[in-house]
Amino acid sequence: MHMSDEMKLCTIDDFASQIASYLPYPSMHLVTPLSADGNMASISKYLTAKNSSIAGATIVALYLLRRRRHAAQLNGGKRSSELQLSKDNAKKEKTVVDKVFFARVLQIVKIMVPGVFCKESGYCLLIAAMLVARTYCDVWMIQNGTMIESGIISRDVNLFKKHFYYYIAAIPGISLVNNFLKLGLNELKLCCRVRLTKHLYDEYLQGYTYYKIGNLDNRIGNPDQLLTQDVERFCNSVVDLYSNVSKPLLDIGLYIFKLTSAIGAQGPACMIGYLMFSGLILTRLRRPIGKMTVMEQRYEGEYRFVNSRLITNSEEIAFYNGNLREKQTIHSTFQKLVDHLHNFIVFRFSTGFVDSIIAKYIATVVGYLVVSRPFLNHTHPRHLHSTHAELLEDYYQSGRMLLSMSQALGRIVLAGREMSRLSGFTARITEIMKVLKELNSGKYERTMVSQQGGKDSESQDRITLVPGSGEIINKDKIIKFEHTPLATPNGDILIKDLSFEVTSGTNVLVCGPNGCGKSSLFRVLGELWPLFGGRLTKPERGKLFYVPQRPYMTLGSLRDQVIYPDTVEDQRRKGTSDKVLKEYLDNVQLGHILEREGGWNTVQDWMDVLSGGEKQRMAMARLFYHKPQFAILDECTSAVSVDVEDFIYSHCRTVGITLFTVSHRKSLWKHHEYYLHMDGRGSYEFKPITQETVEFGS
Amino acid sequence: MHMSDEMKLCTIDDFASQIASYLPYPSMHLVTPLSADGNMASISKYLTAKNSSIAGATIVALYLLRRRRHAAQLNGGKRSSELQLSKDNAKKEKTVVDKVFFARVLQIVKIMVPGVFCKESGYCLLIAAMLVARTYCDVWMIQNGTMIESGIISRDVNLFKKHFYYYIAAIPGISLVNNFLKLGLNELKLCCRVRLTKHLYDEYLQGYTYYKIGNLDNRIGNPDQLLTQDVERFCNSVVDLYSNVSKPLLDIGLYIFKLTSAIGAQGPACMIGYLMFSGLILTRLRRPIGKMTVMEQRYEGEYRFVNSRLITNSEEIAFYNGNLREKQTIHSTFQKLVDHLHNFIVFRFSTGFVDSIIAKYIATVVGYLVVSRPFLNHTHPRHLHSTHAELLEDYYQSGRMLLSMSQALGRIVLAGREMSRLSGFTARITEIMKVLKELNSGKYERTMVSQQGGKDSESQDRITLVPGSGEIINKDKIIKFEHTPLATPNGDILIKDLSFEVTSGTNVLVCGPNGCGKSSLFRVLGELWPLFGGRLTKPERGKLFYVPQRPYMTLGSLRDQVIYPDTVEDQRRKGTSDKVLKEYLDNVQLGHILEREGGWNTVQDWMDVLSGGEKQRMAMARLFYHKPQFAILDECTSAVSVDVEDFIYSHCRTVGITLFTVSHRKSLWKHHEYYLHMDGRGSYEFKPITQETVEFGS
Repeated sequence: MHMSDEMKLCTIDDFASQIASYLPYPSMHLVTPLSADGNMASISKYLTAKNSSIAGATIVALYLLRRRRHAAQLNGGKRSSELQLSKDNAKKEKTVVDKVFFARVLQIVKIMVPGVFCKESGYCLLIAAMLVARTYCDVWMIQNGTMIESGIISRDVNLFKKHFYYYIAAIPGISLVNNFLKLGLNELKLCCRVRLTKHLYDEYLQGYTYYKIGNLDNRIGNPDQLLTQDVERFCNSVVDLYSNVSKPLLDIGLYIFKLTSAIGAQGPACMIGYLMFSGLILTRLRRPIGKMTVMEQRYEGEYRFVNSRLITNSEEIAFYNGNLREKQTIHSTFQKLVDHLHNFIVFRFSTGFVDSIIAKYIATVVGYLVVSRPFLNHTHPRHLHSTHAELLEDYYQSGRMLLSMSQALGRIVLAGREMSRLSGFTARITEIMKVLKELNSGKYERTMVSQQGGKDSESQDRITLVPGSGEIINKDKIIKFEHTPLATPNGDILIKDLSFEVTSGTNVLVCGPNGCGKSSLFRVLGELWPLFGGRLTKPERGKLFYVPQRPYMTLGSLRDQVIYPDTVEDQRRKGTSDKVLKEYLDNVQLGHILEREGGWNTVQDWMDVLSGGEKQRMAMARLFYHKPQFAILDECTSAVSVDVEDFIYSHCRTVGITLFTVSHRKSLWKHHEYYLHMDGRGSYEFKPITQETVEFGS
Repeated sequence: MHMSDEMKLCTIDDFASQIASYLPYPSMHLVTPLSADGNMASISKYLTAKNSSIAGATIVALYLLRRRRHAAQLNGGKRSSELQLSKDNAKKEKTVVDKVFFARVLQIVKIMVPGVFCKESGYCLLIAAMLVARTYCDVWMIQNGTMIESGIISRDVNLFKKHFYYYIAAIPGISLVNNFLKLGLNELKLCCRVRLTKHLYDEYLQGYTYYKIGNLDNRIGNPDQLLTQDVERFCNSVVDLYSNVSKPLLDIGLYIFKLTSAIGAQGPACMIGYLMFSGLILTRLRRPIGKMTVMEQRYEGEYRFVNSRLITNSEEIAFYNGNLREKQTIHSTFQKLVDHLHNFIVFRFSTGFVDSIIAKYIATVVGYLVVSRPFLNHTHPRHLHSTHAELLEDYYQSGRMLLSMSQALGRIVLAGREMSRLSGFTARITEIMKVLKELNSGKYERTMVSQQGGKDSESQDRITLVPGSGEIINKDKIIKFEHTPLATPNGDILIKDLSFEVTSGTNVLVCGPNGCGKSSLFRVLGELWPLFGGRLTKPERGKLFYVPQRPYMTLGSLRDQVIYPDTVEDQRRKGTSDKVLKEYLDNVQLGHILEREGGWNTVQDWMDVLSGGEKQRMAMARLFYHKPQFAILDECTSAVSVDVEDFIYSHCRTVGITLFTVSHRKSLWKHHEYYLHMDGRGSYEFKPITQETVEFGS
């Protein structure tokens, strides 16, 4: 439910001619070619190079103004972003059109329009120019239309023909102006989107931010939607606002300039005065709208949340047969949203009534009053001895301008309403920018569950968890935990104090029930999770390889699957020929794939094309290609036949890959020297595998 | 990048007055009050009850027309939806504005506007009425403005005052019309959204459709987005289209009526002729736009896909340190999208140029020609002896109308462009409606992986999988598999032929490596997955309970967590008092929660509030409350202390709940009589647990 409902699909000159077609006939039937040319002249006055330059100047001025405003408020912006750490604040601030909002918008605009001499500002100028041009086109159209009609009515074939041909001749130009305007707007939107997207991705894909944002931090629910949709929406909204505001601003600039030179500053002053006045009233009048928009967004959010929640938990719910229960939840949430929307519409109706009266109609009334005063007051010095013609001249020089100016002002005041929508997107974009920055500086927020009543009576005694308080030392061929607590990012403590040492060549079997901390251990090893304390000695990341349960296949060619995450260039640098890659595939009995799928460069969605077992074996071939010092095999041979499995382990031994294995297969014990067993209740044992351990199992 | 860029934030009468303010001054300076009233009269002609009734009639006519069109094409629609089973077809059809498209839209419209006498059609009428009213307001505004100005110029204070007061008096009315229009549009959008959403949810939440759509079928990627966002977009788009088309249609209806009565059918006929002609040309001209929109949607889709893909696999990618590799993918996808959008903009620029010339300007040219003919041809019978005044009268009776009509026609032709956008949403909505219908009739599509090269050499020999070909028999106190194959929905065969029998009272321990088919077995038991063959005897769903690894907490009060999926009413019917519930909590040492969280009716996001262990124990309390015949405990006591665990098992025995347990804890063996071990390679063993099995482990 946004503002687009007050937009019409038609361009100004549609209206121009449509309206013109309603004009009272006396307005025409005495128009003579002469006077017509008179108008043409009076209009063509507008089209001097001088004014165009003024227009240009106005824009630049506005731009600079913005920048100064920006510089002035950037600190303000910063302050606010520090203030609003708490969710509520963020919510409150969300859609208030205030300093903070402008600070944010301009912060983002600065990203999208990096300099004065860039493509974007070029398009801004194009748009402004086309807007001006269009005004003149509209005026001309009406002029010409009047001529044509007077031609028809006075049955003057030549007059008709002349202006009819003018019209035909002008068509291409006018059509060009309109389409250039659209072109400019669209291109500007696209450019902005590209800049902003690139900027966000640079932060999003730096380090493991894309992982952290979802797994270590819970402020941003759906980054993908933010990065794709909201960025686009923001750009569209901001560009539309630009085009809706710049036109009136340009007009006003022109009018003020001309008027002050013509009838002095008094008239325009009144106008501006009224603008201020009505602006004040309306911002106060519109304040509740801002609040209600926040509410709307919150309800929309809840509604989406219950939906995605249903999907993420669909299996559990289906097992519990809980769809009726969930249906109630969803329907009540939806109902809440609908009720609110309905009230909002009614409210907007009532305020919109006052709003449009103040911003549009009374503005015109003021315009009329200001204009009429010198005319109707017969004692007024200005027109004491002026003839009718002079009055006219004066009126069309100043009066009309005052009126149009008042309407331009009105339109600006109205545009303020659009901002509240923009501020919504702005808030979201600012939020993700903030979170990304913080994540990249290693700072993350999350509701720490166990701070309020821990997991088990055993681990009840609190130990303070300071993310990243542990020390990581990079050293080859050794992995050594010293008094490291294992805890989930939301504070569930799995093992309070873990200490063991593994050197190259000794394979370790890791076992224990689900949720006992196996994966957590590996995430710490992989440096995905912060260390909560103690010391961890390990080779640097590249030399430690993790083969997950769910082998990941990247988008790309078959070769990419084997050498992932390397690129073909890396492969060449490492001097690994395709022949060698083929060997790796053969080792895991995947050679046939090469023929089946048609060569190394076939591109497919390998996640779908390969079966479970094939994916697991592909992951092994990948392991052989990278030959890391250590590798973690996490239940990743469950769908692989024993012979292949045995080969994998012996091969790893020969090429010197030390393995951590998670598996419950007896058949694997023989490949390992040690076992690490965690019982899921905070205690663990790290022991060599002897005959009896094999007999009694873990 | 949609059409909104050619929409302006301003209402017609803005333009009216703005344009009026540019009029050549001769148009005014001879206006006399008399002639002015003349116009008023000539205008007020429009406002007769007769015409309003015509307007009403037109709408109803349009509506009925639609319905007939609909009835005629529904079959067409059906046919198409059968045709487009293949994705490509769907893609091709997506944005072509043709019969199929209309059939679809009307199919959905029928859902949103169920009858002639419903709220929705009421709002449709309101909108139409307001549109007409606004036209008249605009005309009047111009009339009055002219009067005021002529008052100013001729320094006639009374004339000025009179019409100035008219203006002020009229303001509220005009403002009301505008805001009623907005109200109508917004309310209509909301109503439609509600109807459509309700309709979709009734199918979505019927049975396990919400589960199937994500897990058994892969045609709909993100149902939640469809149900929340796309539904809203569709409604907005369709209502906007209605308001953008109905206005010109109304005008045309009025004009044709008046013209044919005034100057005969010839003039209008030419117009309509031109409409047909230009319509033909433009639809051909716009065809590529349709194609490019499809491309755009596809690229946008790919772009979103790579994003969500990155998020779903973030952990694996982070482990593989593959972010650079993924960055390449994302950037290339984004670049492809941007390039396409850029080309599209340029293309739209070039076509839009021709488009607007044909649809808008030449339409006016034709209008002028048709109008001028009788006037300029001095031998024309019509105006042989007519005075200047008569000519005028005639021109303003017919000529102006012809012109406005031509512009109205132009606007309709232009609106055709908006449809291509609508057709995009329509396609999506139709798709999900189709899929939901099919899923509810038990039909699902999915890429069967193993059809192209199975999982392992062992299971290479194909067995044909016919979903739902197995037989399910409901019988109490027994679970019996007879020659049932276990296979994943995408065709990975886990166990070719599974047969075992469990009667009430004999607990079974289920073990085996990950992916060996444990969960699949339970999904089949829970009837979430179709039976691929054989026979399965089991109690009806309610009497079989599954406690998942990830215990699910619903949105609601603390009580709801215990009795889920029951409601408080169910609890009362079952006669279970809160005291009993408290006992269940105490049994699993959760009694303290009641105080901690503040009573049964505290509402929280329990997923976050409860720690891992608390959630698991809550799930147990839930089990005790429901007392099913059989229960599957899927690694769901991993974070529960041994004493609680023991209590749970003994309690289940006493109340007669037979258990299937998945766990690797030796401590649990003693609670079970049988074990079912699957080795993940297609073979399994179902044996009683004896001393030596305990010794040698699974």
